[in-house]
Amino acid sequence: MSKPALRRTEAVAVEKAVGALLARFGNKVATSQAVREQHGHTTTWIANQPPDAVVFAASTEDVQDTVRICAEHRVPVIPFGTGTSLEGHVNAPFGGVSIDLREMNRVLAVHAEDLDCVIEPGVTRKALNEHLRDQGLFFPLDPGADASLGGMAATRASGTNAVRYGTMKDNVISLKAVLPNGEIMRTAQRAKKSSAGYDLTRLFIGSEGTLGVITELTLKLHGIPEAMSSAVCPFPSVDAACQATIATIQSGIPVARIELMDELQVTACNAYSKLSLAPTPTLFLEFHGSEAGVAEQAERFGEIASEFGGGPSVWTTKAEERTKLWQARHDAYHAVVQLRPGTRPLATDVCVPISRLAEAVAGTQADINEMNLVAPIVGHVGDGNFHVSLLIDMDDEAEIKRAEKFLERLAERALALDGTCTGEHGVGQGKMKYLPKELGEPALVVMRAVKQAIDPHNIMNPGKIVAP
Amino acid sequence: MSKPALRRTEAVAVEKAVGALLARFGNKVATSQAVREQHGHTTTWIANQPPDAVVFAASTEDVQDTVRICAEHRVPVIPFGTGTSLEGHVNAPFGGVSIDLREMNRVLAVHAEDLDCVIEPGVTRKALNEHLRDQGLFFPLDPGADASLGGMAATRASGTNAVRYGTMKDNVISLKAVLPNGEIMRTAQRAKKSSAGYDLTRLFIGSEGTLGVITELTLKLHGIPEAMSSAVCPFPSVDAACQATIATIQSGIPVARIELMDELQVTACNAYSKLSLAPTPTLFLEFHGSEAGVAEQAERFGEIASEFGGGPSVWTTKAEERTKLWQARHDAYHAVVQLRPGTRPLATDVCVPISRLAEAVAGTQADINEMNLVAPIVGHVGDGNFHVSLLIDMDDEAEIKRAEKFLERLAERALALDGTCTGEHGVGQGKMKYLPKELGEPALVVMRAVKQAIDPHNIMNPGKIVAP
Repeated sequence: MSKPALRRTEAVAVEKAVGALLARFGNKVATSQAVREQHGHTTTWIANQPPDAVVFAASTEDVQDTVRICAEHRVPVIPFGTGTSLEGHVNAPFGGVSIDLREMNRVLAVHAEDLDCVIEPGVTRKALNEHLRDQGLFFPLDPGADASLGGMAATRASGTNAVRYGTMKDNVISLKAVLPNGEIMRTAQRAKKSSAGYDLTRLFIGSEGTLGVITELTLKLHGIPEAMSSAVCPFPSVDAACQATIATIQSGIPVARIELMDELQVTACNAYSKLSLAPTPTLFLEFHGSEAGVAEQAERFGEIASEFGGGPSVWTTKAEERTKLWQARHDAYHAVVQLRPGTRPLATDVCVPISRLAEAVAGTQADINEMNLVAPIVGHVGDGNFHVSLLIDMDDEAEIKRAEKFLERLAERALALDGTCTGEHGVGQGKMKYLPKELGEPALVVMRAVKQAIDPHNIMNPGKIVAP
Repeated sequence: MSKPALRRTEAVAVEKAVGALLARFGNKVATSQAVREQHGHTTTWIANQPPDAVVFAASTEDVQDTVRICAEHRVPVIPFGTGTSLEGHVNAPFGGVSIDLREMNRVLAVHAEDLDCVIEPGVTRKALNEHLRDQGLFFPLDPGADASLGGMAATRASGTNAVRYGTMKDNVISLKAVLPNGEIMRTAQRAKKSSAGYDLTRLFIGSEGTLGVITELTLKLHGIPEAMSSAVCPFPSVDAACQATIATIQSGIPVARIELMDELQVTACNAYSKLSLAPTPTLFLEFHGSEAGVAEQAERFGEIASEFGGGPSVWTTKAEERTKLWQARHDAYHAVVQLRPGTRPLATDVCVPISRLAEAVAGTQADINEMNLVAPIVGHVGDGNFHVSLLIDMDDEAEIKRAEKFLERLAERALALDGTCTGEHGVGQGKMKYLPKELGEPALVVMRAVKQAIDPHNIMNPGKIVAP
């Protein structure tokens, strides 16, 4: 698309910056090969590009000092949460300094009456929910991995219950970030809504560390529902499952989760999670509400499913059974890995208007078969978002080529159906090449102008989203 | 805060631009005093600052040509929807050309399966809902005025049912805008969610025409609920009404509307809308859902209200009674005007965390009494957002001074309670002075940098939100 402005940062600049960081932080700076490689970890087949050093920041001041030192020497800064991103977001293609934010893991305030909390970016979603449970509150977003909430904001993450509760863009009230010049910006006060100027909160959500380092988040919370029920519902085809999903959403049933697994994924989960589901396209569902409300939703869904040849659903409101079910859904990735041991898993996602979902999934399955790949499909089907988990034999050059071709066709099909090359994983390094086609040049010109305006020396996570 | 970069645009530049517009558009350009003044209409006490000319655009191409001509001559461009904004958004302090978008009023597509539609910016919310009704769909946002949806997006509007359905930021999937250089930018495809780069959609929502002219919107739609019920519930005090609201939200009741009127507002509505409500702080409510769901919500709310000394509620599910009720709520402004004929009404809004709402309203009422002003209060109380309608005798200099002081104290109190100087009206000209205190200098530096990057010659609605 465009050439990176920075080559590998000059060794002398890096040396000076790391020297200054060591002087400031002592043993909170790591330069060992192992730690550096951990922080360039990509969870995909994108090659590891380690930073030159890692700073373990414990406070906003630590972040500020690190950014200021790096800015002085024009050395890249790469924010790091838990390293669970999927498109090379934390790689350091030009070297530089990774700021590990996991020690910034304090819950600073919970405002139960306002249904919000203020946290540091290294708090993970599970840790937050542990913290909140006694107060009858929870933070709903669940991307599968126990990601840091700062990282989830930075990548505009969502997950299984975004269909009901929205994505990170809908659940962050305000944030603080250290800007490329080391200053601290607050994007908003704590009011639930505001029309006071440009939406800097949303500008930073999904900016993948390219505009600054998020150091504090004010998040919306929800009361733990009085009742939850979960179900598994088999369908004769992916198309039937998609049609039932459309009808469910359209009829206003406030489904909390509605997840599709294709036949291969069900088979993998049966083996891995000791389930005994019929090997056919299947929806996993969850409803939240009052006792009566949940029962009513279940009944209405059952009627819709049977219209499309689905069912019978197996329902449960028991906590341990629900946990087992959703654990199996979250272990889908691990289950997939077991399908073909010794191969490299590569998870990718696209998102299309829900009316085009069946077509998108069918086309993708046809590609998988035609290209002789192993690649189960799971989907946040209520949002039109689905994932393909490729299992690639990295010793087979021809298979790698086919997988590359497959990924291109997947993205192109999504775009042709008015969808996006990524519903929730983000752009990182892996999907930059699809943006010109998806958004057109004027949008990219604006993105580059915004990046240049906020980070004129391109030190914040360079080589991601848009290159100058 | 900072000085405007543009003085009144040079007469010769304006003359050339208007000449070129007349050559291009003929009688679609108006330069009469009356039309120009209509387009500088502010609905408040901010002085009318008319543009030099008005172009009635009928297509995106018309907008492009107008912007290109204005850009060539460095003449300001002010997008105009229905002129219902409240903070001087459509004023032309430096002169320039107003683009009236009311003729761009086509619904381009309705995708019922995807629960979205594509529209031109001049479609009003009532026109859209008329269009959608036969398909069992609706667009929920309701700011009271029959505003254009382009204007609602530009000001990040919300209204009575934002508590359930969110604000414009939550209900726009993507948009097209003509940039200051005349190019057309598309911010996203039609997928319900995306992580593909910076959130340009949200950057333009609330940008008040300062970054470009919105020419197309893809909006989320909802199915018309199976059942709706409305209620009026009296409370002994504003504090009791606020506490009941907090408990309602916290308990997860998915209230669609929960609106507070203070005693004076109830009195005004009784007189104007021929109601016979007890003159006491009152909540207007609405619930959406299934028949059983709505009944359950009503019952649970009733229990909560009585805990705080509220009630008895008067409920109705009849369409005509519900319409009468909400018409009265929407006529609150007109009712207020009748309280003190001959005065100038001035509507302002602030928003605070809901836990601070009772305190904010009580402090505001104390100010009103102390300052001897007439100013009823209504509030979107589920969001912590409330409005004060001042009725000002514009012949009384001392009263004007007191009103000015009151507005400052209102904004300052909101900020001190971790709130915002505007929950939904926007910044325009009227609230620029509060932004430094609300957001701090780093956020304003970023806003100015973004404005400068996208609109380097500051031709798009200059003198609003941030001045260079």
